[in-house]
Amino acid sequence: MGAIIRPMDSSSIKALTFDVFGTVVDWRSSIIREGEALGRRNSLTVDWARFADAWRGQYQPNLEKVRSGELPWTKLDNLHRMALDQLLVDFNIKGLTEAEIDDFNRAWHRLYPWPDTVPGLTRLKAKFVLATLSNGNVALIVNMAKRTGLPWDAVLGAEVSRHYKPQPEVYLGAADMLGLAPSECMMVAAHNSDLAAASRLGFHTGFVSRPGEHGPSQSSNVSAEGAWDIVADSFIDLADQLGC
Amino acid sequence: MGAIIRPMDSSSIKALTFDVFGTVVDWRSSIIREGEALGRRNSLTVDWARFADAWRGQYQPNLEKVRSGELPWTKLDNLHRMALDQLLVDFNIKGLTEAEIDDFNRAWHRLYPWPDTVPGLTRLKAKFVLATLSNGNVALIVNMAKRTGLPWDAVLGAEVSRHYKPQPEVYLGAADMLGLAPSECMMVAAHNSDLAAASRLGFHTGFVSRPGEHGPSQSSNVSAEGAWDIVADSFIDLADQLGC
Repeated sequence: MGAIIRPMDSSSIKALTFDVFGTVVDWRSSIIREGEALGRRNSLTVDWARFADAWRGQYQPNLEKVRSGELPWTKLDNLHRMALDQLLVDFNIKGLTEAEIDDFNRAWHRLYPWPDTVPGLTRLKAKFVLATLSNGNVALIVNMAKRTGLPWDAVLGAEVSRHYKPQPEVYLGAADMLGLAPSECMMVAAHNSDLAAASRLGFHTGFVSRPGEHGPSQSSNVSAEGAWDIVADSFIDLADQLGC
Repeated sequence: MGAIIRPMDSSSIKALTFDVFGTVVDWRSSIIREGEALGRRNSLTVDWARFADAWRGQYQPNLEKVRSGELPWTKLDNLHRMALDQLLVDFNIKGLTEAEIDDFNRAWHRLYPWPDTVPGLTRLKAKFVLATLSNGNVALIVNMAKRTGLPWDAVLGAEVSRHYKPQPEVYLGAADMLGLAPSECMMVAAHNSDLAAASRLGFHTGFVSRPGEHGPSQSSNVSAEGAWDIVADSFIDLADQLGC
C-alpha cells in the first residue's frame, strides 16, 4: 500500500519563482563541456571537473563580499570573471587571448537545462507566472533562456533588487514587482537553504531534488531537509503535483 | 519608379527595447471597452472615450511628480489609481465597491495589442532579444503579456531602474542589464520624444507609427519627426526592414 498523499491546494499560488543554477540548469556538466572544448582548441591539459568545482567554489565567497559590503554592488558576470582570472593562474593555464577568456566566462550564459526542465516549465507556464529568482545577472539569465527555450515570464532576482540571496530584499523585491504577496508565490529550488530563506518571508516552497548537481560525490542537498510544501524529483513531477 | 531604399545594417543590434503604451498595445480602445463593460454592469452613463483620455491625461503630470521628487518612487499601478480616484469624482461615478475600482484600475494590465504586434514580435524574437522599456510596472507588463502572448525575453524599464522615462537612468539601466552598449540596442516607439531621449544616449531608433493611438483627432506623433534609423507603419514592416 502506498503512503497517503495529501495533494497541495495550489489555488492561492499565482507565481512560481525559480532558483536557476543547479535547479533549472546543470551548471557542472555544462562548464566541464565548455572547458573541454576550450582545452581541445588550445591544447590544454586540465582536469575540467576539478576546474568547474573550483570555479563554483568561489561563488559563495564572492557573493559574500558583496553581501557584507566589502565590495560594492557587482553583477555575477564580473564575480565569475574575478574568480576565473585567479583560476587561470591556479591551474597554470596560459596563452588565452582576452576574447577567449571573456568567451569562457560567458559559458555561464550557455548552461544547459536538465532534461525535464523545458517540458516541465512549459506545462507550469499555462497555470502560473514563471519568474527567475536567481543570483545570476539579467543578461546571463536572458541569454541562457533564449538559447535553450526557457519560457520565463519575467527575469527578476539579484540584479533588479541589487542584493544577493539569501538576503530578504531579493525575495521580497521579486514578490513586490510581481504585484503579489509572498504567500501567493512559491519558491522552487534544489537547495534547502534557499527555500528556508524564502519560507521565513512567507513564500510557499517547492523542493526539486538534483542529486547530480555536484557530480557523483554530492553530499549536500541530496534530499529535502525541511517541511516544504512540495518535494519533487523533477519539473514534470512538480507540474503533476501542482495540477498542471 | 520607387524611391531608393537604403536597407539598414542591423548586424550590430542585439536587442530591441520597446515602449509599450500606444506602441505595442492600443490602450485607448481597451480602456473604453473596459469602461463600457463596467458601465453596463453598474448602469452608469459615462462618455468612456472622454474618460479614457482624461485618465491617460493624468499620466505625464503624475509621472512628473515622481521625476521631480514631489512624490517618492511610486509604481504606475498606484499612479493610475490616484488618477482614477479623482476621475470617479470628476465624472460623478458612484456606488462602485473597492473590488470593482481595483479591478477597473487593473484594466491597464488587460490592454490589447495592435493586430500586427504579436505576429511582428514573433518574427523579431528569432533574431533579437526583445525587452520592454516602459513606464509600466513589472506586474502590469507581465500580466498583459501573459494574457495576449507578447513574447518578451525580459521586462525592464521604469520599475527595475526606479526612474521614469525620459530620464536617462531607464534607458541606460536597461542596456546595462542586457549586458549591451546602447549602440547595440534599438529603441522602438510610436513617440518621437521617447526616441529622441534614447538616441541622445546612443540607442538606435525605430519609429512605428500608431496614428490611431489617440483616436480620430490625434494631432501629435502622427509621423516621424526625427532622423530615426527605421520608420515603419507596423511591427510586420519593422521585421521586414530588420531582415527578420
